[in-house]
Amino acid sequence: MDNDQKITLGHGSGGRLTRDLIRQLFLQNFDNCFLAPLNDSAILEIGGVKLAFTTDSHVVQPLFYPGGDIGRLAVCGTVNDLAVMGAAPHFLSCAYIIEENFGFETLELITRSMAGAALEAGVKIVTGDTKVVEHGKGDGLFINTAGIGKVVYELPKPVKPGDKILVNGPIGNHEIAILIARGGLDIKVDLQSDCAPLNGLISSLWEVSDQIRFMRDPTRGGLATVLNELVTGQDFGVLLFEDQIPVLESVQGVCSLLGFDPLYLANEGKVVIIVSPEQTDQVLDRMLAHPLGKDARIIGEIVNTPSEMVCLRTISGGIRILDMLTASQLPRIC
Amino acid sequence: MDNDQKITLGHGSGGRLTRDLIRQLFLQNFDNCFLAPLNDSAILEIGGVKLAFTTDSHVVQPLFYPGGDIGRLAVCGTVNDLAVMGAAPHFLSCAYIIEENFGFETLELITRSMAGAALEAGVKIVTGDTKVVEHGKGDGLFINTAGIGKVVYELPKPVKPGDKILVNGPIGNHEIAILIARGGLDIKVDLQSDCAPLNGLISSLWEVSDQIRFMRDPTRGGLATVLNELVTGQDFGVLLFEDQIPVLESVQGVCSLLGFDPLYLANEGKVVIIVSPEQTDQVLDRMLAHPLGKDARIIGEIVNTPSEMVCLRTISGGIRILDMLTASQLPRIC
Repeated sequence: MDNDQKITLGHGSGGRLTRDLIRQLFLQNFDNCFLAPLNDSAILEIGGVKLAFTTDSHVVQPLFYPGGDIGRLAVCGTVNDLAVMGAAPHFLSCAYIIEENFGFETLELITRSMAGAALEAGVKIVTGDTKVVEHGKGDGLFINTAGIGKVVYELPKPVKPGDKILVNGPIGNHEIAILIARGGLDIKVDLQSDCAPLNGLISSLWEVSDQIRFMRDPTRGGLATVLNELVTGQDFGVLLFEDQIPVLESVQGVCSLLGFDPLYLANEGKVVIIVSPEQTDQVLDRMLAHPLGKDARIIGEIVNTPSEMVCLRTISGGIRILDMLTASQLPRIC
Repeated sequence: MDNDQKITLGHGSGGRLTRDLIRQLFLQNFDNCFLAPLNDSAILEIGGVKLAFTTDSHVVQPLFYPGGDIGRLAVCGTVNDLAVMGAAPHFLSCAYIIEENFGFETLELITRSMAGAALEAGVKIVTGDTKVVEHGKGDGLFINTAGIGKVVYELPKPVKPGDKILVNGPIGNHEIAILIARGGLDIKVDLQSDCAPLNGLISSLWEVSDQIRFMRDPTRGGLATVLNELVTGQDFGVLLFEDQIPVLESVQGVCSLLGFDPLYLANEGKVVIIVSPEQTDQVLDRMLAHPLGKDARIIGEIVNTPSEMVCLRTISGGIRILDMLTASQLPRIC
């Protein structure tokens, strides 16, 4: 990035521009072994205890949408970032940046929603901060949540060709729900965001498998971006089966209409899991038994070649290369 | 607060309005024993290890000012919030909310400043997040830092009448430096913010004293607000000696001109310490030996009566009651 360049909305997309920015800013300046893997949480050790630590600021618009709100999103996002690193989420922080003249009643609704999501996830919000900026210098409310959890399952483990790729349900619901909630489109769809805390589902899988190799929640950038990040610099690739990837008809419909690709859409209650072929059945069965995994599917596998690439075997039988998302399809979805 | 009320800049001041908002929103909804004390950090236990955990969003304007910038402020603020709770700060998170069109070069300068402050404090920035909002929906850059440290000195301990109150140097520099940096005032003052990581100074005191009862960094709301928070609901009070409180001539000058009170001004490199009379000398000596404590002073003491009040023995010999700050003297100072 040239020094006289400006930050664009694409730099917040979670795709390649975000990745490049983070590498150039954070990795170059904050260089240390904990940050270097750029995982959803950093894995640390304090006093002999292994911890996961993560942070996320939430700038979603609108603040309320079918299936959730910024408060629920903030809790679930941080809980999920800890859980996919093999940690049991314990404690969250909550920092508000409020625009002057924001209504107290709305703030209370959102705070209650955070409290509800925290209860659902079994985490405690233990520390907070409140800042107020002048009218016109913010956008209603931004929420940062950081989180700490105790690592109970070591992740990631080495991924091997033949490993299966699973997802716990239909993809794209969150981003399309946000899109519809913004209005301005002449589309009527009965759709809710999938926003949910996944730590219960995820920890139930550790009980039945010690061969889960990798987990990630496909938020900004979606399924295709997460898997591209996984294969980068590796001697293996990913093959996805389009006919196995669950996408709701309503989501598919909006995508067809607007030219979006569900594989790049953000999710807030989905987890991609890579597991050995030997233990795939027991992991899938356990997922199917959980309310948040009842639509789980095997959607692909790790392959030898082509390495460093994510390929999709399309319904028509062709092969399509899925590149990493460059900018976002839609800004401010989380 | 009425439900139809709006959030004002005063709710972000760190004074009484902030306190009331936090009680009404956070304490009522996030009710748990970790949050309840409303200290600068929450004290937690994970796997038998006692940790401090804190968060702060930074919205200071301007982003650069004499003696610091938003990046240095973000690191120092979080490091100090951990240190005053008796913790050795270890790990920080860093989350940017960037306004579209913000210059990459400026972002890099600020990131480098964070890295420098982290090095100075001996902490590692291990996890991060980047969000971008549309032009006009933010204000250049907001930074959230959360932090984790291991508790090495148990705080707070019971405060007793006769205990001495110390501060490590002149107060008010940060807020006045910000005020001047904003321009628009026909005042020329050679003044720098005191923004600094205090964990080195603070941990050096634990080596010489086991009777430090209380520590707090007097940021938003200043010295008077911190001490008011301390005495609320207690059977003791505070007596400060105006002639002993260090205030730079330049700060005093601007205050006189604008009608500000230095006792309510924000600091970002100051710590208020309460210690037993028996160990006051050794703590003061150790403070004076540290570069960040070389202007340390005994500025007051804990008294039996009047309880629940902070009183100032003025230079002219009178007694003035110092109430808690209601709103801020100046918004967005941190």
